[in-house]
Amino acid sequence: MSAPQAPKVLNRAPGERHGQRVQLGADEPLRLDCGMELGPFTMAYQTYGTLNADKSNAILVCHALSGDQYLTGTHPVTGKPGWWHLMVGPGLPLDTDRYFVIGANVLGGCMGTTGPKETNPATGKPYGMSFPVITIRDMVGAQKLLLDHLGIDQLFCVTGGSMGAMQALQWAASYPERVFAAAPIAGAARHTAQNIAFHEVGRQAIMADPDWCDGDYQSQGKHPRRGFAVARMAGHITYLSGPALHRKFGRTLQNRPGVTYGFDADFQVESYLRYQGSAFVERFDANSYLYITRAMDYFDLVEEYGGVLARAFEGTETRFCVISFTSDWLFPTSENRAIVHALNAVAANVSFVEIESDKGHDAFLLDEPEFRATLAGFLNGAAEHRGIKRP
Amino acid sequence: MSAPQAPKVLNRAPGERHGQRVQLGADEPLRLDCGMELGPFTMAYQTYGTLNADKSNAILVCHALSGDQYLTGTHPVTGKPGWWHLMVGPGLPLDTDRYFVIGANVLGGCMGTTGPKETNPATGKPYGMSFPVITIRDMVGAQKLLLDHLGIDQLFCVTGGSMGAMQALQWAASYPERVFAAAPIAGAARHTAQNIAFHEVGRQAIMADPDWCDGDYQSQGKHPRRGFAVARMAGHITYLSGPALHRKFGRTLQNRPGVTYGFDADFQVESYLRYQGSAFVERFDANSYLYITRAMDYFDLVEEYGGVLARAFEGTETRFCVISFTSDWLFPTSENRAIVHALNAVAANVSFVEIESDKGHDAFLLDEPEFRATLAGFLNGAAEHRGIKRP
Repeated sequence: MSAPQAPKVLNRAPGERHGQRVQLGADEPLRLDCGMELGPFTMAYQTYGTLNADKSNAILVCHALSGDQYLTGTHPVTGKPGWWHLMVGPGLPLDTDRYFVIGANVLGGCMGTTGPKETNPATGKPYGMSFPVITIRDMVGAQKLLLDHLGIDQLFCVTGGSMGAMQALQWAASYPERVFAAAPIAGAARHTAQNIAFHEVGRQAIMADPDWCDGDYQSQGKHPRRGFAVARMAGHITYLSGPALHRKFGRTLQNRPGVTYGFDADFQVESYLRYQGSAFVERFDANSYLYITRAMDYFDLVEEYGGVLARAFEGTETRFCVISFTSDWLFPTSENRAIVHALNAVAANVSFVEIESDKGHDAFLLDEPEFRATLAGFLNGAAEHRGIKRP
Repeated sequence: MSAPQAPKVLNRAPGERHGQRVQLGADEPLRLDCGMELGPFTMAYQTYGTLNADKSNAILVCHALSGDQYLTGTHPVTGKPGWWHLMVGPGLPLDTDRYFVIGANVLGGCMGTTGPKETNPATGKPYGMSFPVITIRDMVGAQKLLLDHLGIDQLFCVTGGSMGAMQALQWAASYPERVFAAAPIAGAARHTAQNIAFHEVGRQAIMADPDWCDGDYQSQGKHPRRGFAVARMAGHITYLSGPALHRKFGRTLQNRPGVTYGFDADFQVESYLRYQGSAFVERFDANSYLYITRAMDYFDLVEEYGGVLARAFEGTETRFCVISFTSDWLFPTSENRAIVHALNAVAANVSFVEIESDKGHDAFLLDEPEFRATLAGFLNGAAEHRGIKRP
């Protein structure tokens, strides 16, 4: 006989307010780039730390494709630490003793914010593929409504890696007066052809799975697990660098003395990828994956500003810190440098740091001391200018 | 009424002998690395040019994953030129007025050589997944039997790109006395973790397709088209470089004034990839794809020679020319340089050229003047030493 199991208690991060949801766009719907209107809709978010009296210490952390609002503490679904637990917390670069840190699930996501998985109030059924195709600008528009709701006129900082960097750039371009500082990390001003190509492979893998059911799998009690896992596997390779895969796995075999002359996961790297694929599909929604990758593909700040990226930032008073990683081949330094060039062209206050790392695109999620020091230093300096008290 | 259609006449390359097949391993079966024996088996091959009297002018061209024996002339299935038509022909680097050029479909292939698609004589049914898992060394062992059959004691040269380079290296290591010269192009002495990872994604995409039927799709009149197309799409991205995709497609839309806010192929790069995927599955066999990618994954000349690559080439008298391309991130220069280092360590006759190109791994298939000049120069020099008459 085993002892009765204790109820699962989430390990909260200090100052964390858990499971917050708000209905937005009730008075006036959100006008989407596709021309449709959305409202009311739900935004799920988490906050860490305390908003100061003049509401000047808020940092919005925008998440990447597979991220969510759980920045630190224990994730309620995976039971693992939030995706930025190395950066958010007391004494960490996003110091929750000093800053009020907000994580919000993006529009189109699947962790509580309205997205294809949620019920369409008009039909009483899940949106599925009837959900409107959204853009990075739509995500940011929804976040702006959240800040209005929280009474925050100006963010101290908006930051994020990858798709989070796209949102940070969109914030700085669309609402410059509401952004004191911005730190786009491992991002780009527009999604490259190669990145669109990888996303298209992922989408085709999902849509090729008969259990996708033309997007209607929820109603039919299915989930396109196999195709979705393939999509995640393909994506996952691109988040790492070749050298990192070599260092981590090389050609090491998975618990066997020699190859089996078969199609099992002989190599550790195969086993690892299969695990990544199958774990991801249990926590993420396949249609959300379609919608969010599409939003990234559509992101093109250059085109939005008439072909001249600098125009996106004309007259900006925001302080920028652009960060890239040497081994990131998905959002390489060259793409980040293009952002810096545009900011320089309008004499913006910008610093640019390329971090030496062999960990690829995912470096922004990992323990990279130089990266942590860079972001901490930027935030400290900006906080001094903003007059945010030290803890 | 339309005029009666003329019978399709293939555009033969000069000196081409078309549609040759030979039964090999009848007397003594081929002993495979997996421990099984195979024989008799069929080898399908093409020859171009004329074998000279002392049989000293034969060049074996080893094909890559998706290639075959049709090096030039019109491909009988696709109707397009053979994959190396820029290199093989009168006056071209592999000058068919001077050399006798052999292209052979690899063991496990699907263009006539015995592979999973062919009928297992023991059962009267297609091999499918009962086909033994083969290795690059098995492919080369089968090619050796072909050369025995042709009465060619020593190849003037063995060459090929990608998996073709693996075969060329294996030839030089396993049968040094039968290789006067070797030109491995865009290759590696062992498949990297990243490459294994991409192959695994492709295999999982195929196996996830219900029409794969556990490999038995032929008997059931099916083909895992959708999953296989996804595999090809993922592979195809890796054959190109990011800059090449940017130059070729960028973010250009496919015959439309703006994005459609949907999941159609809005971008040219998506449309291109979808086409690549769907065209490939019509001419290639999905199980062959599984087996050939597995053979590449298993390739590890370093391990075969006790962890020291140089031992693979000890005492070699073969002349080597190793070629890489700057933008090839799948088989990067570093992997090719490792081969050169090993050859240098045994004082082999080796030249190494890194070709400046932004076309990625596929550069060896494309019009790259410096590459053509390099290979032509190497072959000319070696032919002089070998005493092969000029045309």
